[in-house]
Amino acid sequence: MKKRILIINTGGTLSSVTSEHGLSPGLSSGEILEELRMVSRNLTLETEDFCSLDSANIFPEDWAALAAKIGQIYGNYDGIVIIHGTDTLAYTASMLSFMLQNVPLPVVLTGSQLSISHPVADAMENCRCAIHMAAGGCAGVFAAFNRKVMLGCRTSKIRSMSFDAFDSANYPNVAEISALGLHIRKELLPEKKGVFRVQPDYSDKIFLLKLYPGIDPSILSLLQAQGYKGVYIEGFGLGGMPFLKHDFASAVRDAVDNGMTVLAGSQCPYEGSNLSVYETGLLALRGGVLQAYDMTAEAAVTKLMWVLGQTEKPEEIRDYFQTNLVREVTIPQTD
Amino acid sequence: MKKRILIINTGGTLSSVTSEHGLSPGLSSGEILEELRMVSRNLTLETEDFCSLDSANIFPEDWAALAAKIGQIYGNYDGIVIIHGTDTLAYTASMLSFMLQNVPLPVVLTGSQLSISHPVADAMENCRCAIHMAAGGCAGVFAAFNRKVMLGCRTSKIRSMSFDAFDSANYPNVAEISALGLHIRKELLPEKKGVFRVQPDYSDKIFLLKLYPGIDPSILSLLQAQGYKGVYIEGFGLGGMPFLKHDFASAVRDAVDNGMTVLAGSQCPYEGSNLSVYETGLLALRGGVLQAYDMTAEAAVTKLMWVLGQTEKPEEIRDYFQTNLVREVTIPQTD
Repeated sequence: MKKRILIINTGGTLSSVTSEHGLSPGLSSGEILEELRMVSRNLTLETEDFCSLDSANIFPEDWAALAAKIGQIYGNYDGIVIIHGTDTLAYTASMLSFMLQNVPLPVVLTGSQLSISHPVADAMENCRCAIHMAAGGCAGVFAAFNRKVMLGCRTSKIRSMSFDAFDSANYPNVAEISALGLHIRKELLPEKKGVFRVQPDYSDKIFLLKLYPGIDPSILSLLQAQGYKGVYIEGFGLGGMPFLKHDFASAVRDAVDNGMTVLAGSQCPYEGSNLSVYETGLLALRGGVLQAYDMTAEAAVTKLMWVLGQTEKPEEIRDYFQTNLVREVTIPQTD
Repeated sequence: MKKRILIINTGGTLSSVTSEHGLSPGLSSGEILEELRMVSRNLTLETEDFCSLDSANIFPEDWAALAAKIGQIYGNYDGIVIIHGTDTLAYTASMLSFMLQNVPLPVVLTGSQLSISHPVADAMENCRCAIHMAAGGCAGVFAAFNRKVMLGCRTSKIRSMSFDAFDSANYPNVAEISALGLHIRKELLPEKKGVFRVQPDYSDKIFLLKLYPGIDPSILSLLQAQGYKGVYIEGFGLGGMPFLKHDFASAVRDAVDNGMTVLAGSQCPYEGSNLSVYETGLLALRGGVLQAYDMTAEAAVTKLMWVLGQTEKPEEIRDYFQTNLVREVTIPQTD
């Protein structure tokens, strides 16, 4: 029997058409399907229109709705492909990795840098890769782009124009297309740790704070006064923060003392943070900040949102960030 | 006569020693000089201790003081090397590119990922590259690291641990070390456009705002209420911002209408922004935001600080951002 693959369309460049307002999503999943039939003769493809949005307009509530939908229909399919704009694809892929705990089938996000109707687009190639990953029998949340497949929680958009728009940051690609076909490296996939459960709760009271020299530390108390519960700080290098003159490290300690969850990482796109190396990191660490280590910004932000949706207890929050849930993080053995 | 090179030490890993608080700067420039004598027999090296700081603790006022110092002493030297921590080296290199307008000699920043006292450190290699670039007669602000020399305003820290910590983002390296020695590609250097002037004024009332799905647009009015005059927004992909539900684009228009300078770029480390492609960018553009195009985050933040220190007139601010001052930006010809 042919494997059944569901293609959920959310919009993005892949389905875009030119309008007087610039490029914006337009094609329905049915129209996309017409283009895809020829690349998937051995599969039964179904499609569904979830939304038709430029992914700059995808919000956390859409992630929760998408996770809930997958929870309802997954039993009917061997795999699911999600067509998504590239702008926030890495955020959605990361969040679905957390919301779809122990997902029992492949969920593969893809998109393109040019519309599927463009004669030299990458759209068909990316869909083909995603569809065959979805039919490959390996459970997990993935992103397929430019002939490679990445763990969703390791995917980061690093180029704004090239077809090679995404990198698997600080983790190898889990599959690549070559003369061998689609070769999946199963040892890199997240292991199943329990039963499948959709856990769509999240907190939207979090903030992403990227440091720059001269940042006024009072931003942290300002955010707390506005009701923010957590902040992900992209520090310098290995995660360092200023502690002289404009003393940011003290402001962080105050924020933690006042009940804010402070997660600290690196603004370098590669290799991540380790706050225990330099004094500029140690001070923050002793003040109670949690470490993002080598998580992507997309994974750090969405994990923070998701964890604060699961619990408000500091010790449980800390436990979540000391746990590698879906291979989103490498926690040094010495810590 | 031997060329005279001044080495200004600001601290950082290169000069670091181990303490009970973690690694922190310790060696003086005299101690560093002892290590460097053997790699520079044909040059006269002098040293000066400017400060001894982990560069997470370098602030905009240090940039202004450093620029002023260079303005005072440059006539005595053929080139200047600045030893600097890697964490904010790219910010300092970018800001000095703006503050030292038409600098008449090489100013080369360098540092290392391991202390110069470490047996397998990159420190000596980086200093050697920086010193010889400083002696090379090519005026400009540069960063030398891992056998390559980058324009200061194109330098970005992309790796937190590897020796190859910096990239010249969206611009070629201007010099590389190979079997040819230090080969400088002069056609890539910024041209001299006028007389040397130190322009150290800057505004510290700017903010760096990295977007994430679900960001509450009210952050912009909150920043304005705090007296911030400018904001650099790292948007999605080509610079897109949400305009549905949580309508960020409208909040940006309101901020511009209220007199805030809004600069928009991409959170992708490579290839930069172009807001005129998608509706999500066009709306912001029509609302009066300025474009960062392919500037690094470090260059965008420091150019914003610096420009707002030069003028408060909107039309002059716009002119600065439509001008490629020191090859920090590629402005598309259609714009």
